[in-house]
Amino acid sequence: MAERKIQDLFGKPIEVVNVGLASMVEPLKAQDVPVVDVDWRPPKEGIKHLRFTQNGKTIDEANAEAVARIKKARPILVGMGLAKNVIPGYHDHLILHAGPPISWERMCGPTKGAVMGALIYEGMAKDEAEAEKMAASGAVEFAPCHHFHAVGPMAGVVSPHMPVFIIENKAFGNRAYCTQNEGLGKVLRYGGMGPDVYARLKWMEESLYPTLNRALESMPEGIDIKALIAQALHMGDECHNRNRAATSLFLRAIGPALARTNQDNENLAKVIEFIDKNDHFFLNLSMPAGKAALEPAEGIEGCSIVTVMARNGTDFGIRISAMPDTWFTAPAGIVQGLYFPGFTEADANPDIGDSTVTETAGYGGFAMAAAPAIVQFVGGTPQD
Amino acid sequence: MAERKIQDLFGKPIEVVNVGLASMVEPLKAQDVPVVDVDWRPPKEGIKHLRFTQNGKTIDEANAEAVARIKKARPILVGMGLAKNVIPGYHDHLILHAGPPISWERMCGPTKGAVMGALIYEGMAKDEAEAEKMAASGAVEFAPCHHFHAVGPMAGVVSPHMPVFIIENKAFGNRAYCTQNEGLGKVLRYGGMGPDVYARLKWMEESLYPTLNRALESMPEGIDIKALIAQALHMGDECHNRNRAATSLFLRAIGPALARTNQDNENLAKVIEFIDKNDHFFLNLSMPAGKAALEPAEGIEGCSIVTVMARNGTDFGIRISAMPDTWFTAPAGIVQGLYFPGFTEADANPDIGDSTVTETAGYGGFAMAAAPAIVQFVGGTPQD
Repeated sequence: MAERKIQDLFGKPIEVVNVGLASMVEPLKAQDVPVVDVDWRPPKEGIKHLRFTQNGKTIDEANAEAVARIKKARPILVGMGLAKNVIPGYHDHLILHAGPPISWERMCGPTKGAVMGALIYEGMAKDEAEAEKMAASGAVEFAPCHHFHAVGPMAGVVSPHMPVFIIENKAFGNRAYCTQNEGLGKVLRYGGMGPDVYARLKWMEESLYPTLNRALESMPEGIDIKALIAQALHMGDECHNRNRAATSLFLRAIGPALARTNQDNENLAKVIEFIDKNDHFFLNLSMPAGKAALEPAEGIEGCSIVTVMARNGTDFGIRISAMPDTWFTAPAGIVQGLYFPGFTEADANPDIGDSTVTETAGYGGFAMAAAPAIVQFVGGTPQD
Repeated sequence: MAERKIQDLFGKPIEVVNVGLASMVEPLKAQDVPVVDVDWRPPKEGIKHLRFTQNGKTIDEANAEAVARIKKARPILVGMGLAKNVIPGYHDHLILHAGPPISWERMCGPTKGAVMGALIYEGMAKDEAEAEKMAASGAVEFAPCHHFHAVGPMAGVVSPHMPVFIIENKAFGNRAYCTQNEGLGKVLRYGGMGPDVYARLKWMEESLYPTLNRALESMPEGIDIKALIAQALHMGDECHNRNRAATSLFLRAIGPALARTNQDNENLAKVIEFIDKNDHFFLNLSMPAGKAALEPAEGIEGCSIVTVMARNGTDFGIRISAMPDTWFTAPAGIVQGLYFPGFTEADANPDIGDSTVTETAGYGGFAMAAAPAIVQFVGGTPQD
């Protein structure tokens, strides 16, 4: 049997076409694998890199144009609104999720939980059983955040009444959207369901959002998110997994306007406390800032630069500039990261969330190399 | 004349006692300098380091005790008050200044300006001429901040009605004091005088102080300044010349209490704006935190550790733990730093301020090495 090992490996008989060096295939022949030899060798003049598209566009130039547009971006927080009111094309039965498109059946547990929780929060279902039935019935349309100029961390679920930040890229006029960050613990974006989750979402809709929105309405220039990111990168944040400096700077930037538009001291105190207790608050601003920066780089003929990287907990998907409507997907990876004591990769859901938009936009690499604790959290080494 | 160069150098005849190697003194003998040779060589058994005081105290142990006390410090912002009400021993004609003791006559321009400005701000003098006359008359008592558990940046002037932060070292129960930071530009601590300077000081007394004080009174635990410093050091601050992260974190920490105790939205907005526009705001908290940490290390017999380093613009003074009431002074240095375009060291006042308390307490060294811009500002290199 030892001679047939290669057949056992694949679980079925294989046939091999060998291109070039004949000696490469000798071990297979020794195992009685059928082999077709093709006599080929590299041309003496070498092989040119792929530099032009079929239409004659220079790929390097197309890529340079994309990079120039991304660098030119000027993402500003210009306001807020309910998803159904401000995201173009939104409708009452639309639920957005992170990552590439996926059907209800193929969704992972956390995404299903977040969808069901959102339906209950919206009042579209009265409990989890009804929510599950509704989600599976086809009465709800699912779509990636990325199809609606939006991004969402983790499950990334957006439902009609969720308030979203509106980021405008002042250099190009396009807008991007993201919900407010819920904080850590049992929250919807991790698939958390239950009265405390819905109560927090309601408070975010009825107290946090109006408070921040009133302040923003009093700031005609908005808040320059790129400037905050640039400063925070000098203060140890990489604006994906670490947002402590940026969250602090955001609170400073909006603080005077929060005070001027204050209607209730206790409410304002709770709003500041909520932000102060959640260093990830700024993530939901750094993400749409990245999205707003990247969209103008989409659709450049011949451009091979990746403009979308996102995961839905089942599939990992990318889109490249030249083919802005096409998702290239593969199974989402299991994170080789830092787990809570008692948990291992075997307990983990595959990778999930649109937050890789921060790496797609390209901020944080240098800060990351200088942050050994976070490198370990996401599973890497500073040398990466 | 060439043979007598050494006499010219000192401007008067010299006589030399030479201990040990006779050849060391030959060039002097060649210049006809009177020399007494002492035949001495190091003992074969070597020379012991100075390890014990005359009373038999171990210096290393005394120093270890001082370091242990400094490390054990837990400086907490526990409240605020007017200098005359909260600094023990304060009286109506007492003006504190940075650095070691100094008479009015020997004060540098910036300190004189700050003293005169303070007298006008206090209503003790109606204009600069009257203030100068009063300061020179002996009607005002001058004393170092350090004699009153206080520290002051630059001129470091404290007058009776200036509000001060009260920092309590919870590990030892001692307290330290510092005024609120005025911001940059034309301000009293640089010796600035004029209506805008006094108006700002009045606003700080009548609006900023009551607002912060109300908030602090609602926080029975106070604000842990050591914890803020520890975090800020990880965010690029060294908490002397760079306090951006710490100022941000302070605003986050006091934010909810500011909101809860708010009496007037516009006033609160101005308070937050004032702090937001001044990244040095936290300096006047990091300094008294250092002072509060260092005082328990004073007065340890045999301890050679420096517990005070401070400059008044004329003299630089230190005090060591074993001799807590004795100032060792020397002329203050001229800063070899980064000057505004068109200005050089020739325009500069000698070094000034109690802010070296941050280095005396020992925070910031590592952050400093990683901050090339600030190293250049104060005149150094990262390799230092």
